[in-house]
Amino acid sequence: MISRKISENLGKSSWIRSMFEEGEKLRKIHGAENVYDFSLGNPDVPPPKTVKEAFRKLVLDEDPNLHKYMVNAGFPDVREKVAAQLQKETGVPMSAQNIVMTVGAAGGLNVALKALLNPGDEVIVFAPYFVEYLSYIDNHGGKAVIVSTNLDTFEPDPELLRVKITSNTKAVIINSPNNPTGVIYSEDVLKKISQVLEDKEKEYGTAICVISDEPYNKLVYDNAQVPSVLKIFKNAMVVNSYSKSLALPGERIGYIAASSRIDEIGLLMSALIYCNRTLGFVNAPALVQKVIGETLESAVDTEEYKKRRDVLYNHLTSLGFKCAKPRGAFYLFPKALMDDDVEFIKRALKYNLLLVPGTGFGCPGYFRISYCVSMKIIENSLPAFEALAREFR
Amino acid sequence: MISRKISENLGKSSWIRSMFEEGEKLRKIHGAENVYDFSLGNPDVPPPKTVKEAFRKLVLDEDPNLHKYMVNAGFPDVREKVAAQLQKETGVPMSAQNIVMTVGAAGGLNVALKALLNPGDEVIVFAPYFVEYLSYIDNHGGKAVIVSTNLDTFEPDPELLRVKITSNTKAVIINSPNNPTGVIYSEDVLKKISQVLEDKEKEYGTAICVISDEPYNKLVYDNAQVPSVLKIFKNAMVVNSYSKSLALPGERIGYIAASSRIDEIGLLMSALIYCNRTLGFVNAPALVQKVIGETLESAVDTEEYKKRRDVLYNHLTSLGFKCAKPRGAFYLFPKALMDDDVEFIKRALKYNLLLVPGTGFGCPGYFRISYCVSMKIIENSLPAFEALAREFR
Repeated sequence: MISRKISENLGKSSWIRSMFEEGEKLRKIHGAENVYDFSLGNPDVPPPKTVKEAFRKLVLDEDPNLHKYMVNAGFPDVREKVAAQLQKETGVPMSAQNIVMTVGAAGGLNVALKALLNPGDEVIVFAPYFVEYLSYIDNHGGKAVIVSTNLDTFEPDPELLRVKITSNTKAVIINSPNNPTGVIYSEDVLKKISQVLEDKEKEYGTAICVISDEPYNKLVYDNAQVPSVLKIFKNAMVVNSYSKSLALPGERIGYIAASSRIDEIGLLMSALIYCNRTLGFVNAPALVQKVIGETLESAVDTEEYKKRRDVLYNHLTSLGFKCAKPRGAFYLFPKALMDDDVEFIKRALKYNLLLVPGTGFGCPGYFRISYCVSMKIIENSLPAFEALAREFR
Repeated sequence: MISRKISENLGKSSWIRSMFEEGEKLRKIHGAENVYDFSLGNPDVPPPKTVKEAFRKLVLDEDPNLHKYMVNAGFPDVREKVAAQLQKETGVPMSAQNIVMTVGAAGGLNVALKALLNPGDEVIVFAPYFVEYLSYIDNHGGKAVIVSTNLDTFEPDPELLRVKITSNTKAVIINSPNNPTGVIYSEDVLKKISQVLEDKEKEYGTAICVISDEPYNKLVYDNAQVPSVLKIFKNAMVVNSYSKSLALPGERIGYIAASSRIDEIGLLMSALIYCNRTLGFVNAPALVQKVIGETLESAVDTEEYKKRRDVLYNHLTSLGFKCAKPRGAFYLFPKALMDDDVEFIKRALKYNLLLVPGTGFGCPGYFRISYCVSMKIIENSLPAFEALAREFR
C-alpha cells in the first residue's frame, strides 16, 4: 500500500539507526555500562535551571490562552523577544516580522525549502552533511547538489562551489558548527562564498538563498565565534532550534529568521507562514514557545562537553587518529584507519565501540563520534579505542 | 525568490483568514463585544482540570528524560495507553505498535499521505471539506478528487463515490463529526462505502486506505455515537488530535492509529514513522505526549457547546434558515439566503456578523458558523441574524 519511493528509502539502511540496534544487542550481552555508544546526538546534559523554572511558572499560571491557537507564525511577544536576542547577538536589525517559530530546525528547514523550491530547483549541500537534508530537499521537489569540503579543515572551498552553481540553484545550506565534524566555518570562507553567490546571481539573474542551519551555535569552545550569516549574506535565512542549546530536543521548538535585506521579504515571510500551516505544523508548540521567550539568554553548560571533547580528541590523536579539532557541536569526525569506513566501524564493534561511518554523511573514509555520553563511559572507552588502533599498527 | 506554486496559492484568498482580518477592522471600530465573530474554530472552553494537573505534576517532577528525544513514533508507554484507550472505545485490538504520536492531526494527515502517495495518486475528499486537505494532498504529489455529499444530510452518497473511484485511487478521507457541517456519518452509510471500496479494490486489484480524520469525535451531543471506522473498514487509519477534545490546539498533539487488518501493517508503520521523521516533525512534542498519557479518559465539557448549538440552531431555523442539525463538532452549516454565499457573507458584515462562505469548503450556497464564542456574544448576535434574515423576506 505504501509509496514506492518511501518503500525504497526504507530499504536503504540508516547507519545511525542500525548502530542503535546493534547497540541494543550489545547492551543485552555485556551490560549498558560496558557498551561505548557514540552513535546518537541526544543531548545528555540537563536543560538550564531557568528553563525548568519557566516551565513551572507558566504551568502554575492561569493564562487561559496558554494552550490555544495563536497566529501561525507564533506568539507575537515571543517572536519579538527572539528577534531582539538575535539583533543583540548579530548587530543585524530584526523584528517579530522577520521570525516564524517552527517545530524545531527540522520543521523549519522543511518550511523554508517548501517556500522556496520549484520542481527541479537545485540546493547545494556541503559534504560531510547532516543526512536528513537530502530527504528534506527531496520532499519539496528539489535536487540536492553535493559539494565536497576541504578534507583537512572540513570547510567549503568557494571555488569548488562556484563550478557547481547553475541557473537552477535556488539555495545553499550551511551548517556551522557542523554535524558531523564540529567545525565552525570561518568568516573568511563565508565571505568568499558570499562573493561567489553574488557573482553567480549576477551571471544568471537569479537569487540564491543561504539557509543557515545553526542548532549548535551556542555549543562552542575555546571562545570560538560563529560568524553571523545575516551579516555576511544578503539573501540569508537562519534556521535554528533549542534542541541543543537548551537541551529540549523532544519538545520540537525552533525558528526561522529571514533577513530584511531579502527583496520582497514580506512576501517571503507570508510564504514561510503559509508553508508552516499547510505542511501540517500549523504552529510551533505553544507552551514551549512561551518557555523560550523567558529563557533566551540561557544555554546549557558547555564546559561539560568541552571536557569530553578534550579527553577524546587528545586520546585519539595520541593513538594516531587524524582529526580536525572541533570548536563546536558535540561531534568528532576522525579519519578511519582503513579506507573502508563501514568495515572499520564493524571492527570497532568487537570492542563494544558504537560509531557511525562517514559514508552516512556523504564522506567515506571517516567516522563520527558523538560525545553525548557521560565522562565515565568516555573514560572506560579509552582502552577500547587503543585496542582498535593497535589492530592497524 | 519564492516557489511559483506557493506564490499562486498566497494570491488566492483564504476565507477564514480574510474574515479574521475583516473582524480586526470591525473590532477597532465597534469594540470587541459588538462584533460577532463566528469565523474561527479556536476552542474557547478551558482544558479539563486533569490536563492542568498532569502538566503540573510532570513539570514539577525531576524526570531527566522528559524533554529528550524518544523514538520517532513517540514514547512507548504513551502509545501503549493510547492504544488501550482506543481498544476500549472501539473493541478493536490495538497495541503500541499500531500508534504513531504526531504533531496534531494536521501533522498526522501529512505523514499518512506522504507514506501512501505515489505521484498522481488520487485521494477522495467529500465536499464540504476542511479546506486544508487539498494542500495536504498536493504536498505529497497526490490529486484530490472531490465527491459531493447529499445536501440535505451532508452524508456521502456511496453510489456517487463508486463512479469516482479509479485504479489510481489510493485513499479516501473521512471527517466525521464533520467540519464544516457538524454532521456525524451514520454506520449505515459507512458500511455501504466499505462495500463500494471492497468492490473497487477487487475490480482494480488495488488497496484503498480510509483515512479517518476525527478531531471532533469527543465533541458529540444528544448521546450520538461516532461509528468506529476501525471496525467497519479493513484498510483503516485513524488520524486524531487532542486540540478539540482536550482544548490544546496550540500544543500540536495527536496520533495516527492504523488497523492491524491492513496487509503488511508492519511495513506501513515503518513508513509512517519514517515520514514523521523526514518531513521534519521528528516526533510529537515530548511533554505534552506525557500529559496525554495521563488524561486519556478526560474530555472538555460538551454541555457548554451544546447550549450554544441549541440557541443558535433554534434561532436560525426559526428565522427560516435551512440547516442540518449538527450532532457533533462546534459548527453549523446553514444554507445562505441567496445563491451567492460570498455576497451573502458580505451582507452579514453590515450587522457585524463574521461568517465563512461555503465556497471556502467546496460547497457554495452555504455558510459556516463556528460557535467557539461565549454565550453572551451568541445572545447579543441574535438580533443581528434577525436583521440579516429580514433583508431577504
